[in-house]
Amino acid sequence: MSSTWGEKVKISIFGESHGNGIGVVIDGLPSGYKIDIDKVLCQMARRAPGKDKTATPRKESDTPKILSGMLSDTTTGAPLCAVIQNTNTKSGDYNGLLDCPRPGHSDYPAFVKYGGFNDIRGGGHFSGRLTAPIVFAGAICRQILESKGISIAAHISSIADVYDDEFDSVNTDLSLIKRLNNSSFALINESVELKMREAVEEARMSLDSVGGTVECIITGVQAGFGEPMFGGVEGVISSIIFGIPAVKGIEFGKGFELTKMRGSQSNDSFCYNGENVVTKTNNCGGILGGITNGMPIVFKTAIKPTPSIAKEQDTVNLVTKENARLSVHGRHDPCIVPRAVPVIEAAAAVAIMNIL
Amino acid sequence: MSSTWGEKVKISIFGESHGNGIGVVIDGLPSGYKIDIDKVLCQMARRAPGKDKTATPRKESDTPKILSGMLSDTTTGAPLCAVIQNTNTKSGDYNGLLDCPRPGHSDYPAFVKYGGFNDIRGGGHFSGRLTAPIVFAGAICRQILESKGISIAAHISSIADVYDDEFDSVNTDLSLIKRLNNSSFALINESVELKMREAVEEARMSLDSVGGTVECIITGVQAGFGEPMFGGVEGVISSIIFGIPAVKGIEFGKGFELTKMRGSQSNDSFCYNGENVVTKTNNCGGILGGITNGMPIVFKTAIKPTPSIAKEQDTVNLVTKENARLSVHGRHDPCIVPRAVPVIEAAAAVAIMNIL
Amino acid sequence: MSSTWGEKVKISIFGESHGNGIGVVIDGLPSGYKIDIDKVLCQMARRAPGKDKTATPRKESDTPKILSGMLSDTTTGAPLCAVIQNTNTKSGDYNGLLDCPRPGHSDYPAFVKYGGFNDIRGGGHFSGRLTAPIVFAGAICRQILESKGISIAAHISSIADVYDDEFDSVNTDLSLIKRLNNSSFALINESVELKMREAVEEARMSLDSVGGTVECIITGVQAGFGEPMFGGVEGVISSIIFGIPAVKGIEFGKGFELTKMRGSQSNDSFCYNGENVVTKTNNCGGILGGITNGMPIVFKTAIKPTPSIAKEQDTVNLVTKENARLSVHGRHDPCIVPRAVPVIEAAAAVAIMNIL
Amino acid sequence: MSSTWGEKVKISIFGESHGNGIGVVIDGLPSGYKIDIDKVLCQMARRAPGKDKTATPRKESDTPKILSGMLSDTTTGAPLCAVIQNTNTKSGDYNGLLDCPRPGHSDYPAFVKYGGFNDIRGGGHFSGRLTAPIVFAGAICRQILESKGISIAAHISSIADVYDDEFDSVNTDLSLIKRLNNSSFALINESVELKMREAVEEARMSLDSVGGTVECIITGVQAGFGEPMFGGVEGVISSIIFGIPAVKGIEFGKGFELTKMRGSQSNDSFCYNGENVVTKTNNCGGILGGITNGMPIVFKTAIKPTPSIAKEQDTVNLVTKENARLSVHGRHDPCIVPRAVPVIEAAAAVAIMNIL
Repeated sequence: MSSTWGEKVKISIFGESHGNGIGVVIDGLPSGYKIDIDKVLCQMARRAPGKDKTATPRKESDTPKILSGMLSDTTTGAPLCAVIQNTNTKSGDYNGLLDCPRPGHSDYPAFVKYGGFNDIRGGGHFSGRLTAPIVFAGAICRQILESKGISIAAHISSIADVYDDEFDSVNTDLSLIKRLNNSSFALINESVELKMREAVEEARMSLDSVGGTVECIITGVQAGFGEPMFGGVEGVISSIIFGIPAVKGIEFGKGFELTKMRGSQSNDSFCYNGENVVTKTNNCGGILGGITNGMPIVFKTAIKPTPSIAKEQDTVNLVTKENARLSVHGRHDPCIVPRAVPVIEAAAAVAIMNIL
Repeated sequence: MSSTWGEKVKISIFGESHGNGIGVVIDGLPSGYKIDIDKVLCQMARRAPGKDKTATPRKESDTPKILSGMLSDTTTGAPLCAVIQNTNTKSGDYNGLLDCPRPGHSDYPAFVKYGGFNDIRGGGHFSGRLTAPIVFAGAICRQILESKGISIAAHISSIADVYDDEFDSVNTDLSLIKRLNNSSFALINESVELKMREAVEEARMSLDSVGGTVECIITGVQAGFGEPMFGGVEGVISSIIFGIPAVKGIEFGKGFELTKMRGSQSNDSFCYNGENVVTKTNNCGGILGGITNGMPIVFKTAIKPTPSIAKEQDTVNLVTKENARLSVHGRHDPCIVPRAVPVIEAAAAVAIMNIL
Repeated sequence: MSSTWGEKVKISIFGESHGNGIGVVIDGLPSGYKIDIDKVLCQMARRAPGKDKTATPRKESDTPKILSGMLSDTTTGAPLCAVIQNTNTKSGDYNGLLDCPRPGHSDYPAFVKYGGFNDIRGGGHFSGRLTAPIVFAGAICRQILESKGISIAAHISSIADVYDDEFDSVNTDLSLIKRLNNSSFALINESVELKMREAVEEARMSLDSVGGTVECIITGVQAGFGEPMFGGVEGVISSIIFGIPAVKGIEFGKGFELTKMRGSQSNDSFCYNGENVVTKTNNCGGILGGITNGMPIVFKTAIKPTPSIAKEQDTVNLVTKENARLSVHGRHDPCIVPRAVPVIEAAAAVAIMNIL
Repeated sequence: MSSTWGEKVKISIFGESHGNGIGVVIDGLPSGYKIDIDKVLCQMARRAPGKDKTATPRKESDTPKILSGMLSDTTTGAPLCAVIQNTNTKSGDYNGLLDCPRPGHSDYPAFVKYGGFNDIRGGGHFSGRLTAPIVFAGAICRQILESKGISIAAHISSIADVYDDEFDSVNTDLSLIKRLNNSSFALINESVELKMREAVEEARMSLDSVGGTVECIITGVQAGFGEPMFGGVEGVISSIIFGIPAVKGIEFGKGFELTKMRGSQSNDSFCYNGENVVTKTNNCGGILGGITNGMPIVFKTAIKPTPSIAKEQDTVNLVTKENARLSVHGRHDPCIVPRAVPVIEAAAAVAIMNIL
């Protein structure tokens, strides 16, 4: 495994930030599903940069061209390949980096791994731009899941020390999910937007960056999905989520908070809701023993601050073998968290396709 | 995937808590490695129950019988199978559970998934007892890794709200690692042991349980290992770690704390240490872009409180289809965290074998 | 992949001919299937040696002990592990082989691959004895398939230049399948048995061995199973069949004969049989474009002569680095073909479980 | 698995005959290899149609555009994606086929599998055109293998009942390999070309088609590669080779001929050739116990006659549910064997990359 993920529905991501193009092959999609391409483009637009000051000013058209796997907007069951041409690349910005790896970036380990032959321009294959094909794949999967009654939404749970509310993971609000799905700065409590933007702007003005957390909910998955042990839902979701650049942590349900609870608090009691077995709380995030229990699946991810900052940092010069100083120029988001939201939703959609 | 994990070195775990036996097949081990079986048994003893009041009074001999893959204590390169007979099983304790799923356990989703045919006695295949073969596999892998200069250690980072110190992840102390590797209540700062044991004892006296966190460090892995995107080291480690029962979260390096930092704080600056490129801090936990950077790999996992508690809880009766009350009897740890330490070390060892 | 095979139902084979035991873990079996263990033992008895002069005089009890995955004869859905103890091993017979690799055997390449650390006694992990766990796994899968109306049978298609009849692959005779399933010298036309046994006996008397072919049929698989390209049914079946020692060729339907036909002869015309689309001939062996077409799946495998012969052969001495002469003593079948029949049926059963 | 193959070097093939484009993602290529694109195009030209009367008159430019994974003609280590635009598609030719499946084609089973949503034009994803990306991937892999001293060549072993000579698989002739690698009608004994072309022309004049066999040799692979059992070299090669349309059989070394030999004839004796252990014959095709023995790897595949023939055939009409008659019009090769040669070489190259 590396840039390929999945067993039933397999995505194979390709491309480098400043190469000819990026894209994805989705192998294993069921046939006969009508895909609304406008909805796909809408998800891609949420991830696209250049919308406001939290994001890089680089403008991408990011319009995917579908080469295969669709006939008149319907999946054929054959592998679906979509390609996004790279345009508007300013490689000049990256020249100095060839010698001096950027702190917090893949530059140095990639240099060692690939013996210096990797395409370093824009981060190459490690660029955040490679999340565009993930969003594409997820937008396709999501439409198939929606036809089965499954919804997925994520929101900015925090930026720096500014917090949004959390999902009600027992009684989910489908109108909230719909609203979040169309937002490019997705928040449950929209009144915190200003404070969050201020935190980002402060960092930007200090030539710095900030991180945050993204919470994601998946509703409508019946009980009994997932496999025991290493095929558990937590393992499957985490293995795709850590494929997203800058993710450094993941927790399911109450996650790390559970470690401070007593069992009598953390256990979610069962009760009947009509014919259905439900839980009164959802501290386990809808997963017990790796298997879904029919409650919404909930997880939160930690997104580190964008490592590319204009502030001068210590690094090394791999050519002269001396210590060096570096300020990263070019177009970089002071905060990647808002754009990570649709990426995490998309990865979750691909994961759920593989669990069902 | 399900009870099988790995690509280069693949482990296949089998067994049910109260069946005839449990064990593991390890496929892909290199040939010609001399294995010290006493060291393997020492790791298994660390996980074994019955040592003190934090653990279940069930005593297991847990002596693995090696059926294949070894000749005169040396690996042959063929799949290594080890079997542990199940003895001392008290199935009577579980009778009532067949109708009433235990809150916080896999009982209910497993009932749905397997249509009631799964072996529910002792949690069946979902039992914590299935971590014994993981420890066995890890103990084999660890000896091979040690011959390559790689060490792995974990400690109880917290129980309830009592915290141990954290690893120094820049300048690691190999004598500390050695001490932890032989401890059954592994702590960096041993003075917190009493407080932790008190927290567990309080929970036990309240017929309740507590959770905690485990921090793990892996030293000696060179820069340049791991694959991009979904083959990143974080994804590989997390996908095996979530196979351990009760794990609900994982973070690498400073993890969720990073989300509150500025980029200038979270980025680990590079510098030369003689000929070697090192970082001055290790907030990224030794992994950048999914690839090792040569610094120690560090991660922390969240362990939820043991769900089996004697305190009465709300549940449902799946036969009468009515709400019900349940107190879980039988032999259960009020705190699983100390015994999770060698399991996490073992899973890390299997993961690293797959990354190299 | 190596000794592990399968995606949905994964088998992991372990053991060495003269080690403590051999066995299999079957991961991914559906729960709730009642297994008739006597039928399983009956299939294993067909493969077991010592029945007559075509086979090695080594007698194995070969009774598998099931450690997990079954409760009161019913599958639980957890991994099923079965272990067969090795008894009656005469390692002394193999002493000289450590220096002089047997022509036609894995000894030399295994020596290179494992650096001499592999267990050479009895062929180690490469021994034909390792097909016993395959038969076990296949016997379990076969019973599940039978409950879905799928039958599998194979027969000795040829030994040396003595030929049996071929299956009628358009109108299959289920009573024939039943008869073959219980035969230890499976033939469609039983009148050729004597001639075949004579061919084997002649080889044995000349201290030599003979090969042959095995034809296998699978009936009751509906149209539309299999995946395009590399997931095609031919590829899936061949990848497990070549895991059986001594198999050197496989062909589907008329196979190599098709290469001498015109398209108008080899194409199987469609017609309606009531509501069902059937083909008038079955030259394609039930597979078109890798996908089943609803007709019986038919394939034939080439089994090379047993390489272990008492006749003196040229070899090398890897210690003295000189040419050498070798006669292989010990218990060896002069013809492995009759015992390969249940192994091929079993591998086909495991393959079909993965295709459905 | 389906249109994705491989573990170390994974190819993911996409596209449909008359869709927007076809191509391949190659994931896992080592970095730093200079690729001669002209040599790649040369291999693709060998497969391209329209060269003479044995092939379909459809002319494809088939120039692949490389989107990623290369920088200045050198592999970067990131996934390499190449896209071939589809041009010159005459979909009109296929209209009638929507109702009446072509005998010998995937039409009917694909209709069942995909519920009629698959792209039937030109065979869709099942088209022989999808072998172009395989040739591309193989041409890349082959150049990397050549730098390690490994050569691959194939030739038309037979068409109908006209036979070429066979490879000398003990003393291989590298100048022959070079000649074959550049031939579009690859023969060891070029004097049989006329007879073969006549056999094809006769079939074409009868509105019919013919099949044949392709023999492939791989030289320079050291002893000790491959895994035991299901990871054996025969299994790995066969699982990719059966992904090529029209392949219905494969045999290694003397294959089916071995079944008529005595062990003393089929066993390849070892001897020293200077320091090296070699075999005097190569009946096993360079593979013992699934592991390479250092001799050339040799295998032969059976290619069925092109199923698309102009001669009228019996079929069914899936709409009216009545029997029907069909003659397949459009551009079809009366014999696919010459064009299969570079495809088989390419698949072998991808397989060997995964074995090393």
